[in-house]
Amino acid sequence: MEDLFVIKVGGNVIDDAAFLASFLSAFAAAPVKKVLIHGGGKIASRLGDKLGIESNYVNGRRITDGDTIDLVTMVYGGLVNKKIVAALQSKGCNAVGLTGADADIIPAIKRTVKEIDYGFVGDVQTGKMNPAFLTLLLNNGYSPVIAPLTHDGKGQMLNTNADTIASSLAIILSNHFHVRLIYCFEKKGVLQDINDEGSVIRLITKDIYAHLKNEHKLFDGILPKIDNAFAAIDSGVQEVLIGDARDLLTNITEDTRGTLIK
Amino acid sequence: MEDLFVIKVGGNVIDDAAFLASFLSAFAAAPVKKVLIHGGGKIASRLGDKLGIESNYVNGRRITDGDTIDLVTMVYGGLVNKKIVAALQSKGCNAVGLTGADADIIPAIKRTVKEIDYGFVGDVQTGKMNPAFLTLLLNNGYSPVIAPLTHDGKGQMLNTNADTIASSLAIILSNHFHVRLIYCFEKKGVLQDINDEGSVIRLITKDIYAHLKNEHKLFDGILPKIDNAFAAIDSGVQEVLIGDARDLLTNITEDTRGTLIK
Repeated sequence: MEDLFVIKVGGNVIDDAAFLASFLSAFAAAPVKKVLIHGGGKIASRLGDKLGIESNYVNGRRITDGDTIDLVTMVYGGLVNKKIVAALQSKGCNAVGLTGADADIIPAIKRTVKEIDYGFVGDVQTGKMNPAFLTLLLNNGYSPVIAPLTHDGKGQMLNTNADTIASSLAIILSNHFHVRLIYCFEKKGVLQDINDEGSVIRLITKDIYAHLKNEHKLFDGILPKIDNAFAAIDSGVQEVLIGDARDLLTNITEDTRGTLIK
Repeated sequence: MEDLFVIKVGGNVIDDAAFLASFLSAFAAAPVKKVLIHGGGKIASRLGDKLGIESNYVNGRRITDGDTIDLVTMVYGGLVNKKIVAALQSKGCNAVGLTGADADIIPAIKRTVKEIDYGFVGDVQTGKMNPAFLTLLLNNGYSPVIAPLTHDGKGQMLNTNADTIASSLAIILSNHFHVRLIYCFEKKGVLQDINDEGSVIRLITKDIYAHLKNEHKLFDGILPKIDNAFAAIDSGVQEVLIGDARDLLTNITEDTRGTLIK
Protein backbone atom coordinates (compact mmCIF):
# COMPACT_ATOMS: atom_id res chain seq x y z
CA MET A 1 0.00 0.00 0.00
CA GLU A 2 1.10 3.54 -0.69
CA ASP A 3 2.05 5.93 2.11
CA LEU A 4 -0.43 8.56 3.26
CA PHE A 5 0.15 11.32 5.79
CA VAL A 6 -2.97 12.39 7.69
CA ILE A 7 -1.93 15.65 9.30
CA LYS A 8 -3.75 17.66 11.94
CA VAL A 9 -2.54 21.22 12.47
CA GLY A 10 -3.57 22.96 15.66
CA GLY A 11 -5.09 26.31 16.47
CA ASN A 12 -1.90 27.96 17.74
CA VAL A 13 -0.25 27.36 14.37
CA ILE A 14 -3.31 28.71 12.52
CA ASP A 15 -3.20 31.86 14.64
CA ASP A 16 0.46 32.61 13.85
CA ALA A 17 0.65 33.81 10.22
CA ALA A 18 4.40 33.26 9.84
CA PHE A 19 4.33 29.80 11.46
CA LEU A 20 1.32 28.83 9.34
CA ALA A 21 3.02 29.95 6.13
CA SER A 22 6.14 27.92 6.85
CA PHE A 23 4.05 24.89 7.86
CA LEU A 24 2.03 25.12 4.63
CA SER A 25 5.26 25.32 2.60
CA ALA A 26 6.46 22.16 4.32
CA PHE A 27 3.07 20.50 3.72
CA ALA A 28 3.05 21.46 0.03
CA ALA A 29 6.60 20.17 -0.43
CA ALA A 30 6.10 16.79 1.29
CA PRO A 31 6.46 14.29 -1.59
CA VAL A 32 3.69 11.98 -0.46
CA LYS A 33 -0.09 11.71 -0.59
CA LYS A 34 -1.56 13.78 2.23
CA VAL A 35 -4.71 15.00 3.96
CA LEU A 36 -4.76 18.11 6.15
CA ILE A 37 -7.20 18.62 9.03
CA HIS A 38 -7.17 22.06 10.61
CA GLY A 39 -8.64 23.70 13.69
CA GLY A 40 -10.06 27.19 13.75
CA GLY A 41 -7.87 28.75 16.39
CA LYS A 42 -9.02 31.87 18.09
CA ILE A 43 -10.46 33.45 14.94
CA ALA A 44 -13.96 32.12 15.68
CA SER A 45 -13.81 33.42 19.26
CA ARG A 46 -12.59 36.85 18.14
CA LEU A 47 -15.29 37.12 15.47
CA GLY A 48 -17.85 35.87 17.96
CA ASP A 49 -16.83 38.62 20.38
CA LYS A 50 -17.45 41.22 17.68
CA LEU A 51 -20.86 39.70 16.94
CA GLY A 52 -21.85 39.31 20.58
CA ILE A 53 -21.70 35.51 20.41
CA GLU A 54 -20.16 34.27 23.62
CA SER A 55 -17.54 31.48 23.58
CA ASN A 56 -18.29 28.87 26.24
CA TYR A 57 -16.10 25.84 26.85
CA VAL A 58 -16.66 22.77 29.01
CA ASN A 59 -13.78 20.27 29.27
CA GLY A 60 -12.05 21.99 26.36
CA ARG A 61 -15.08 21.55 24.06
CA ARG A 62 -16.95 24.53 22.72
CA ILE A 63 -20.64 24.73 23.61
CA THR A 64 -22.24 25.19 20.21
CA ASP A 65 -25.60 26.95 20.15
CA GLY A 66 -27.41 28.00 16.96
CA ASP A 67 -25.43 31.20 16.48
CA THR A 68 -22.19 29.42 17.26
CA ILE A 69 -22.64 26.66 14.68
CA ASP A 70 -23.19 29.37 12.04
CA LEU A 71 -20.09 31.17 13.33
CA VAL A 72 -17.81 28.11 13.16
CA THR A 73 -19.29 27.04 9.80
CA MET A 74 -18.26 30.45 8.45
CA VAL A 75 -14.87 30.61 10.10
CA TYR A 76 -13.69 26.98 9.93
CA GLY A 77 -15.43 25.98 6.68
CA GLY A 78 -15.04 29.33 4.91
CA LEU A 79 -12.37 31.74 6.06
CA VAL A 80 -9.72 29.43 7.52
CA ASN A 81 -10.28 26.56 5.08
CA LYS A 82 -10.20 28.68 1.92
CA LYS A 83 -7.23 30.77 3.04
CA ILE A 84 -5.29 27.54 3.58
CA VAL A 85 -6.44 26.21 0.19
CA ALA A 86 -5.44 29.43 -1.63
CA ALA A 87 -2.04 29.42 0.13
CA LEU A 88 -1.42 25.76 -0.75
CA GLN A 89 -2.42 26.39 -4.37
CA SER A 90 0.15 29.20 -4.51
CA LYS A 91 2.77 26.70 -3.30
CA GLY A 92 1.96 24.14 -6.00
CA CYS A 93 -0.21 21.83 -3.89
CA ASN A 94 -3.54 21.02 -5.52
CA ALA A 95 -5.66 21.39 -2.38
CA VAL A 96 -9.42 20.85 -2.12
CA GLY A 97 -11.13 22.37 0.91
CA LEU A 98 -13.93 20.34 2.46
CA THR A 99 -16.03 19.74 5.55
CA GLY A 100 -17.45 16.45 6.77
CA ALA A 101 -20.76 17.34 5.07
CA ASP A 102 -19.19 17.46 1.60
CA ALA A 103 -19.57 14.13 -0.19
CA ASP A 104 -20.97 12.87 3.13
CA ILE A 105 -17.37 12.26 4.22
CA ILE A 106 -18.14 12.39 7.93
CA PRO A 107 -21.71 11.71 9.07
CA ALA A 108 -22.19 12.42 12.76
CA ILE A 109 -24.83 12.28 15.46
CA LYS A 110 -25.68 15.32 17.55
CA ARG A 111 -24.33 14.57 20.99
CA THR A 112 -26.95 13.35 23.44
CA VAL A 113 -27.67 15.76 26.26
CA LYS A 114 -26.63 14.29 29.61
CA GLU A 115 -25.28 16.59 32.34
CA ILE A 116 -24.08 19.04 29.71
CA ASP A 117 -25.85 20.21 26.56
CA TYR A 118 -23.01 20.70 24.09
CA GLY A 119 -25.48 21.93 21.48
CA PHE A 120 -24.65 21.34 17.82
CA VAL A 121 -21.67 19.09 18.50
CA GLY A 122 -21.33 15.95 16.40
CA ASP A 123 -19.96 12.54 17.37
CA VAL A 124 -18.48 10.88 14.29
CA GLN A 125 -20.26 7.82 12.90
CA THR A 126 -17.04 6.08 11.88
CA GLY A 127 -18.81 3.17 10.21
CA LYS A 128 -20.73 5.45 7.84
CA MET A 129 -17.83 7.61 6.67
CA ASN A 130 -17.00 7.95 2.97
CA PRO A 131 -13.36 6.99 2.35
CA ALA A 132 -14.13 6.41 -1.36
CA PHE A 133 -14.37 10.14 -2.02
CA LEU A 134 -11.07 10.95 -0.31
CA THR A 135 -9.39 8.02 -2.06
CA LEU A 136 -10.72 9.31 -5.40
CA LEU A 137 -9.19 12.73 -4.74
CA LEU A 138 -5.88 11.36 -3.44
CA ASN A 139 -5.48 8.98 -6.37
CA ASN A 140 -6.03 11.86 -8.79
CA GLY A 141 -3.39 14.14 -7.29
CA TYR A 142 -5.54 16.27 -5.00
CA SER A 143 -4.86 16.99 -1.32
CA PRO A 144 -8.01 17.24 0.80
CA VAL A 145 -8.02 20.02 3.43
CA ILE A 146 -10.72 19.35 5.99
CA ALA A 147 -12.38 21.72 8.46
CA PRO A 148 -13.59 20.32 11.79
CA LEU A 149 -17.26 20.24 10.82
CA THR A 150 -19.59 17.31 10.28
CA HIS A 151 -23.33 16.98 9.58
CA ASP A 152 -26.25 14.93 10.84
CA GLY A 153 -27.62 13.85 7.45
CA LYS A 154 -30.81 15.79 8.17
CA GLY A 155 -29.50 19.14 6.99
CA GLN A 156 -27.72 20.31 10.14
CA MET A 157 -24.02 21.13 10.29
CA LEU A 158 -22.27 20.01 13.49
CA ASN A 159 -19.07 21.05 15.26
CA THR A 160 -16.58 18.22 15.84
CA ASN A 161 -13.16 18.16 17.48
CA ALA A 162 -10.40 18.30 14.87
CA ASP A 163 -8.19 15.72 16.66
CA THR A 164 -11.07 13.26 16.58
CA ILE A 165 -11.71 13.93 12.89
CA ALA A 166 -8.03 13.35 12.16
CA SER A 167 -7.93 10.00 13.94
CA SER A 168 -11.26 8.91 12.39
CA LEU A 169 -10.00 9.76 8.89
CA ALA A 170 -6.68 8.04 9.57
CA ILE A 171 -8.56 4.92 10.62
CA ILE A 172 -10.88 4.67 7.62
CA LEU A 173 -8.07 5.47 5.18
CA SER A 174 -5.80 2.80 6.68
CA ASN A 175 -7.77 0.22 4.66
CA HIS A 176 -6.43 1.90 1.51
CA PHE A 177 -3.07 3.35 2.52
CA HIS A 178 -0.17 2.86 4.90
CA VAL A 179 -1.17 5.74 7.17
CA ARG A 180 1.02 7.92 9.34
CA LEU A 181 -1.14 10.16 11.55
CA ILE A 182 0.66 13.37 12.50
CA TYR A 183 -0.52 15.81 15.13
CA CYS A 184 1.30 19.05 14.39
CA PHE A 185 1.45 21.82 16.90
CA GLU A 186 3.86 24.48 18.10
CA LYS A 187 5.84 22.23 20.47
CA LYS A 188 8.61 19.78 19.61
CA GLY A 189 6.57 16.85 20.92
CA VAL A 190 4.96 15.61 24.10
CA LEU A 191 7.07 17.24 26.79
CA GLN A 192 7.99 15.95 30.26
CA ASP A 193 8.33 19.58 31.31
CA ILE A 194 5.98 21.88 29.40
CA ASN A 195 8.49 24.73 29.72
CA ASP A 196 11.43 22.76 28.37
CA GLU A 197 11.43 22.02 24.63
CA GLY A 198 14.37 19.69 25.28
CA SER A 199 12.22 17.35 27.38
CA VAL A 200 10.47 15.61 24.46
CA ILE A 201 9.29 12.11 25.29
CA ARG A 202 10.52 10.21 22.22
CA LEU A 203 8.34 7.13 22.55
CA ILE A 204 4.99 6.46 24.20
CA THR A 205 3.67 2.91 24.35
CA LYS A 206 0.55 1.93 26.27
CA ASP A 207 2.69 0.86 29.22
CA ILE A 208 4.68 4.07 29.23
CA TYR A 209 1.43 6.07 28.89
CA ALA A 210 -0.14 4.35 31.89
CA HIS A 211 2.99 5.04 33.89
CA LEU A 212 3.19 8.72 32.86
CA LYS A 213 -0.48 9.24 33.72
CA ASN A 214 -0.05 7.57 37.12
CA GLU A 215 2.86 9.85 37.89
CA HIS A 216 0.86 12.89 36.64
CA LYS A 217 3.71 13.72 34.30
CA LEU A 218 1.53 14.77 31.36
CA PHE A 219 -0.46 17.99 31.14
CA ASP A 220 -4.20 17.50 30.70
CA GLY A 221 -4.42 19.09 27.23
CA ILE A 222 -2.33 16.37 25.66
CA LEU A 223 -4.31 13.41 27.02
CA PRO A 224 -7.15 13.42 24.42
CA LYS A 225 -4.53 13.57 21.64
CA ILE A 226 -2.75 10.50 23.01
CA ASP A 227 -6.05 8.68 23.55
CA ASN A 228 -7.00 9.44 19.93
CA ALA A 229 -3.57 8.21 18.85
CA PHE A 230 -3.93 4.84 20.57
CA ALA A 231 -7.49 4.47 19.24
CA ALA A 232 -6.11 5.04 15.73
CA ILE A 233 -3.31 2.50 16.19
CA ASP A 234 -5.71 -0.09 17.58
CA SER A 235 -7.76 0.37 14.38
CA GLY A 236 -5.04 -0.06 11.77
CA VAL A 237 -3.10 3.20 11.63
CA GLN A 238 0.60 2.43 11.27
CA GLU A 239 2.09 5.06 13.57
CA VAL A 240 1.31 8.40 15.18
CA LEU A 241 3.71 11.32 15.53
CA ILE A 242 3.15 14.37 17.72
CA GLY A 243 5.42 17.35 17.31
CA ASP A 244 6.52 20.49 15.55
CA ALA A 245 4.51 21.31 12.47
CA ARG A 246 7.54 21.81 10.24
CA ASP A 247 10.02 19.16 11.40
CA LEU A 248 7.51 16.35 11.00
CA LEU A 249 6.95 16.94 7.32
CA THR A 250 10.33 17.62 5.82
CA ASN A 251 13.01 16.61 8.21
CA ILE A 252 12.08 13.46 10.03
CA THR A 253 15.08 12.10 11.87
CA GLU A 254 15.44 10.36 15.20
CA ASP A 255 16.06 13.76 16.81
CA THR A 256 13.32 15.80 15.14
CA ARG A 257 10.48 13.36 14.86
CA GLY A 258 8.82 14.54 18.02
CA THR A 259 6.96 11.89 19.96
CA LEU A 260 6.30 8.52 18.37
CA ILE A 261 3.25 6.69 19.66
CA LYS A 262 2.86 3.02 18.98
CA MET B 1 -22.48 13.35 -24.80
CA GLU B 2 -24.39 13.13 -21.59
CA ASP B 3 -26.65 15.95 -20.39
CA LEU B 4 -25.41 18.33 -17.71
CA PHE B 5 -27.37 21.09 -16.01
CA VAL B 6 -25.26 24.05 -14.85
CA ILE B 7 -27.58 25.90 -12.54
CA LYS B 8 -27.12 29.34 -11.01
CA VAL B 9 -29.44 30.24 -8.15
CA GLY B 10 -29.75 33.89 -7.24
CA GLY B 11 -29.56 35.84 -4.01
CA ASN B 12 -33.29 36.40 -3.60
CA VAL B 13 -33.86 32.65 -3.55
CA ILE B 14 -31.00 32.15 -1.04
CA ASP B 15 -32.57 34.76 1.25
CA ASP B 16 -35.99 33.07 1.30
CA ALA B 17 -35.68 29.92 3.43
CA ALA B 18 -38.90 28.31 2.17
CA PHE B 19 -38.16 29.08 -1.49
CA LEU B 20 -34.59 27.82 -1.08
CA ALA B 21 -35.76 24.57 0.50
CA SER B 22 -38.19 23.86 -2.33
CA PHE B 23 -35.57 24.78 -4.93
CA LEU B 24 -33.04 22.43 -3.31
CA SER B 25 -35.61 19.63 -3.28
CA ALA B 26 -36.15 20.17 -7.00
CA PHE B 27 -32.37 20.28 -7.58
CA ALA B 28 -31.80 17.07 -5.60
CA ALA B 29 -34.59 15.29 -7.48
CA ALA B 30 -33.52 16.30 -11.01
CA PRO B 31 -32.42 12.97 -12.58
CA VAL B 32 -29.40 14.37 -14.41
CA LYS B 33 -25.79 15.33 -13.74
CA LYS B 34 -25.72 18.85 -12.30
CA VAL B 35 -23.57 21.66 -10.94
CA LEU B 36 -24.99 24.37 -8.67
CA ILE B 37 -23.56 27.91 -8.48
CA HIS B 38 -24.99 30.09 -5.74
CA GLY B 39 -24.83 33.74 -4.78
CA GLY B 40 -24.61 35.00 -1.23
CA GLY B 41 -27.71 37.11 -1.06
CA LYS B 42 -27.99 39.72 1.58
CA ILE B 43 -26.40 37.58 4.29
CA ALA B 44 -22.94 39.04 3.68
CA SER B 45 -24.28 42.60 3.81
CA ARG B 46 -26.21 41.92 7.01
CA LEU B 47 -23.18 40.33 8.69
CA GLY B 48 -20.99 43.15 7.39
CA ASP B 49 -23.35 45.67 9.00
CA LYS B 50 -22.93 43.92 12.35
CA LEU B 51 -19.14 43.95 11.96
CA GLY B 52 -18.95 47.54 10.77
CA ILE B 53 -17.91 46.51 7.24
CA GLU B 54 -19.71 48.77 4.79
CA SER B 55 -21.29 47.33 1.63
CA ASN B 56 -20.41 49.46 -1.40
CA TYR B 57 -21.66 48.70 -4.90
CA VAL B 58 -20.72 50.20 -8.27
CA ASN B 59 -22.67 49.02 -11.33
CA GLY B 60 -24.11 46.18 -9.28
CA ARG B 61 -20.65 44.88 -8.31
CA ARG B 62 -19.51 44.85 -4.70
CA ILE B 63 -16.37 46.84 -3.92
CA THR B 64 -14.24 44.26 -2.15
CA ASP B 65 -11.64 45.62 0.28
CA GLY B 66 -9.54 43.43 2.60
CA ASP B 67 -12.23 43.06 5.26
CA THR B 68 -14.88 42.42 2.63
CA ILE B 69 -13.02 39.56 0.92
CA ASP B 70 -12.73 37.87 4.34
CA LEU B 71 -16.44 38.52 4.90
CA VAL B 72 -17.57 37.00 1.60
CA THR B 73 -15.09 34.11 1.92
CA MET B 74 -16.76 33.28 5.23
CA VAL B 75 -20.33 33.81 4.11
CA TYR B 76 -20.28 32.50 0.52
CA GLY B 77 -17.62 29.80 0.95
CA GLY B 78 -18.58 28.78 4.49
CA LEU B 79 -22.05 29.56 5.77
CA VAL B 80 -24.14 29.60 2.59
CA ASN B 81 -22.19 26.89 0.76
CA LYS B 82 -22.18 24.39 3.63
CA LYS B 83 -25.82 24.99 4.55
CA ILE B 84 -26.75 24.19 0.95
CA VAL B 85 -24.51 21.11 0.98
CA ALA B 86 -25.98 19.82 4.25
CA ALA B 87 -29.52 20.42 2.94
CA LEU B 88 -28.79 18.61 -0.35
CA GLN B 89 -27.21 15.70 1.53
CA SER B 90 -30.41 15.41 3.58
CA LYS B 91 -32.37 15.19 0.31
CA GLY B 92 -30.22 12.38 -1.09
CA CYS B 93 -28.00 14.49 -3.35
CA ASN B 94 -24.29 13.80 -2.84
CA ALA B 95 -23.18 17.44 -2.93
CA VAL B 96 -19.60 18.70 -2.63
CA GLY B 97 -19.18 22.38 -1.73
CA LEU B 98 -16.32 24.22 -3.42
CA THR B 99 -14.92 27.59 -4.38
CA GLY B 100 -12.88 28.44 -7.46
CA ALA B 101 -9.70 28.07 -5.37
CA ASP B 102 -10.38 24.40 -4.62
CA ALA B 103 -8.61 22.13 -7.09
CA ASP B 104 -7.70 25.36 -8.89
CA ILE B 105 -11.10 25.15 -10.61
CA ILE B 106 -11.29 28.87 -11.39
CA PRO B 107 -8.05 30.87 -11.53
CA ALA B 108 -8.68 34.58 -11.85
CA ILE B 109 -6.82 37.87 -12.15
CA LYS B 110 -7.44 40.72 -9.73
CA ARG B 111 -9.26 43.34 -11.75
CA THR B 112 -7.02 46.13 -12.98
CA VAL B 113 -7.77 49.48 -11.39
CA LYS B 114 -9.06 51.97 -13.98
CA GLU B 115 -11.63 54.58 -12.96
CA ILE B 116 -12.88 52.32 -10.20
CA ASP B 117 -10.86 50.17 -7.79
CA TYR B 118 -13.06 47.13 -7.26
CA GLY B 119 -10.53 45.73 -4.79
CA PHE B 120 -10.27 41.94 -4.46
CA VAL B 121 -12.50 41.18 -7.43
CA GLY B 122 -11.39 38.47 -9.82
CA ASP B 123 -11.84 38.21 -13.58
CA VAL B 124 -12.00 34.55 -14.58
CA GLN B 125 -9.11 33.14 -16.61
CA THR B 126 -11.31 30.83 -18.64
CA GLY B 127 -8.40 29.20 -20.46
CA LYS B 128 -6.77 28.07 -17.21
CA MET B 129 -9.84 26.57 -15.55
CA ASN B 130 -9.84 22.94 -14.35
CA PRO B 131 -12.77 21.06 -15.91
CA ALA B 132 -11.03 17.73 -15.18
CA PHE B 133 -11.78 18.01 -11.48
CA LEU B 134 -15.48 18.76 -11.99
CA THR B 135 -15.73 15.99 -14.59
CA LEU B 136 -14.12 13.57 -12.11
CA LEU B 137 -16.72 14.47 -9.47
CA LEU B 138 -19.67 14.37 -11.88
CA ASN B 139 -18.66 11.01 -13.34
CA ASN B 140 -18.45 9.56 -9.83
CA GLY B 141 -21.92 10.64 -8.77
CA TYR B 142 -21.12 13.88 -6.95
CA SER B 143 -22.83 17.24 -7.52
CA PRO B 144 -20.47 20.22 -7.17
CA VAL B 145 -21.92 23.26 -5.34
CA ILE B 146 -19.82 26.31 -6.10
CA ALA B 147 -19.57 29.61 -4.22
CA PRO B 148 -18.79 32.78 -6.23
CA LEU B 149 -15.15 32.97 -5.17
CA THR B 150 -11.98 32.54 -7.19
CA HIS B 151 -8.26 32.96 -6.43
CA ASP B 152 -5.23 34.57 -8.01
CA GLY B 153 -2.85 31.61 -7.73
CA LYS B 154 -0.67 33.65 -5.38
CA GLY B 155 -2.62 32.90 -2.23
CA GLN B 156 -5.34 35.53 -2.47
CA MET B 157 -9.05 34.74 -2.61
CA LEU B 158 -11.07 36.93 -4.99
CA ASN B 159 -14.76 37.81 -5.27
CA THR B 160 -16.33 36.98 -8.65
CA ASN B 161 -19.84 37.47 -9.97
CA ALA B 162 -21.84 34.23 -9.72
CA ASP B 163 -23.50 34.66 -13.16
CA THR B 164 -20.07 34.92 -14.75
CA ILE B 165 -18.84 31.84 -12.91
CA ALA B 166 -21.91 29.94 -14.08
CA SER B 167 -21.37 30.82 -17.74
CA SER B 168 -17.61 30.15 -17.52
CA LEU B 169 -18.23 26.72 -16.00
CA ALA B 170 -20.94 25.96 -18.56
CA ILE B 171 -18.48 26.84 -21.34
CA ILE B 172 -15.57 24.69 -20.15
CA LEU B 173 -17.85 21.77 -19.36
CA SER B 174 -19.47 21.89 -22.80
CA ASN B 175 -16.42 20.03 -24.15
CA HIS B 176 -17.44 17.08 -21.98
CA PHE B 177 -21.21 17.31 -21.71
CA HIS B 178 -24.30 18.52 -23.53
CA VAL B 179 -24.78 21.57 -21.28
CA ARG B 180 -27.95 23.39 -20.40
CA LEU B 181 -27.16 26.58 -18.46
CA ILE B 182 -30.03 27.60 -16.20
CA TYR B 183 -30.29 30.93 -14.41
CA CYS B 184 -32.78 30.40 -11.62
CA PHE B 185 -34.33 33.29 -9.82
CA GLU B 186 -37.65 34.22 -8.27
CA LYS B 187 -39.37 35.34 -11.52
CA LYS B 188 -40.99 33.19 -14.18
CA GLY B 189 -38.51 34.39 -16.79
CA VAL B 190 -37.37 37.56 -18.53
CA LEU B 191 -40.44 39.78 -18.29
CA GLN B 192 -41.71 42.43 -20.72
CA ASP B 193 -43.36 44.09 -17.75
CA ILE B 194 -41.47 43.52 -14.51
CA ASN B 195 -44.72 43.69 -12.53
CA ASP B 196 -46.53 41.11 -14.66
CA GLU B 197 -45.44 37.48 -14.24
CA GLY B 198 -47.58 36.71 -17.28
CA SER B 199 -45.36 38.78 -19.56
CA VAL B 200 -42.55 36.23 -19.90
CA ILE B 201 -40.58 36.59 -23.12
CA ARG B 202 -40.43 32.97 -24.29
CA LEU B 203 -37.55 33.26 -26.72
CA ILE B 204 -34.63 35.66 -27.04
CA THR B 205 -32.36 35.42 -30.05
CA LYS B 206 -29.62 37.94 -30.81
CA ASP B 207 -31.95 39.81 -33.17
CA ILE B 208 -34.77 39.90 -30.65
CA TYR B 209 -32.30 40.99 -27.93
CA ALA B 210 -31.02 43.90 -30.04
CA HIS B 211 -34.59 44.96 -30.73
CA LEU B 212 -35.65 44.74 -27.05
CA LYS B 213 -32.62 46.76 -25.97
CA ASN B 214 -33.29 49.43 -28.61
CA GLU B 215 -36.84 49.75 -27.38
CA HIS B 216 -35.64 49.86 -23.72
CA LYS B 217 -37.98 46.98 -22.96
CA LEU B 218 -35.62 45.16 -20.61
CA PHE B 219 -34.72 46.23 -17.09
CA ASP B 220 -31.02 46.86 -16.55
CA GLY B 221 -30.48 44.07 -14.01
CA ILE B 222 -31.24 41.37 -16.57
CA LEU B 223 -28.80 42.59 -19.25
CA PRO B 224 -25.58 41.04 -17.81
CA LYS B 225 -27.42 37.71 -17.47
CA ILE B 226 -28.43 37.78 -21.13
CA ASP B 227 -24.94 38.88 -22.20
CA ASN B 228 -23.47 35.97 -20.22
CA ALA B 229 -26.02 33.67 -21.84
CA PHE B 230 -25.03 34.63 -25.39
CA ALA B 231 -21.32 34.41 -24.51
CA ALA B 232 -21.96 30.87 -23.29
CA ILE B 233 -23.90 29.89 -26.41
CA ASP B 234 -21.20 31.35 -28.67
CA SER B 235 -18.70 29.10 -26.83
CA GLY B 236 -20.51 25.77 -27.12
CA VAL B 237 -23.25 25.75 -24.49
CA GLN B 238 -26.35 24.13 -25.96
CA GLU B 239 -29.05 26.39 -24.53
CA VAL B 240 -29.73 28.82 -21.74
CA LEU B 241 -32.91 29.05 -19.71
CA ILE B 242 -33.82 31.91 -17.38
CA GLY B 243 -36.73 31.49 -15.02
CA ASP B 244 -38.32 30.21 -11.85
CA ALA B 245 -35.99 28.14 -9.70
CA ARG B 246 -38.43 25.26 -9.31
CA ASP B 247 -40.18 25.02 -12.68
CA LEU B 248 -36.91 24.79 -14.58
CA LEU B 249 -35.72 21.68 -12.81
CA THR B 250 -38.72 19.43 -12.53
CA ASN B 251 -41.44 20.62 -14.79
CA ILE B 252 -40.05 21.91 -18.05
CA THR B 253 -42.84 22.42 -20.54
CA GLU B 254 -43.44 25.02 -23.22
CA ASP B 255 -45.38 27.07 -20.68
CA THR B 256 -43.07 26.76 -17.67
CA ARG B 257 -39.65 26.82 -19.20
CA GLY B 258 -39.21 30.53 -18.63
CA THR B 259 -37.13 32.33 -21.23
CA LEU B 260 -35.11 30.32 -23.74
CA ILE B 261 -32.03 32.02 -25.08
CA LYS B 262 -30.38 30.70 -28.22
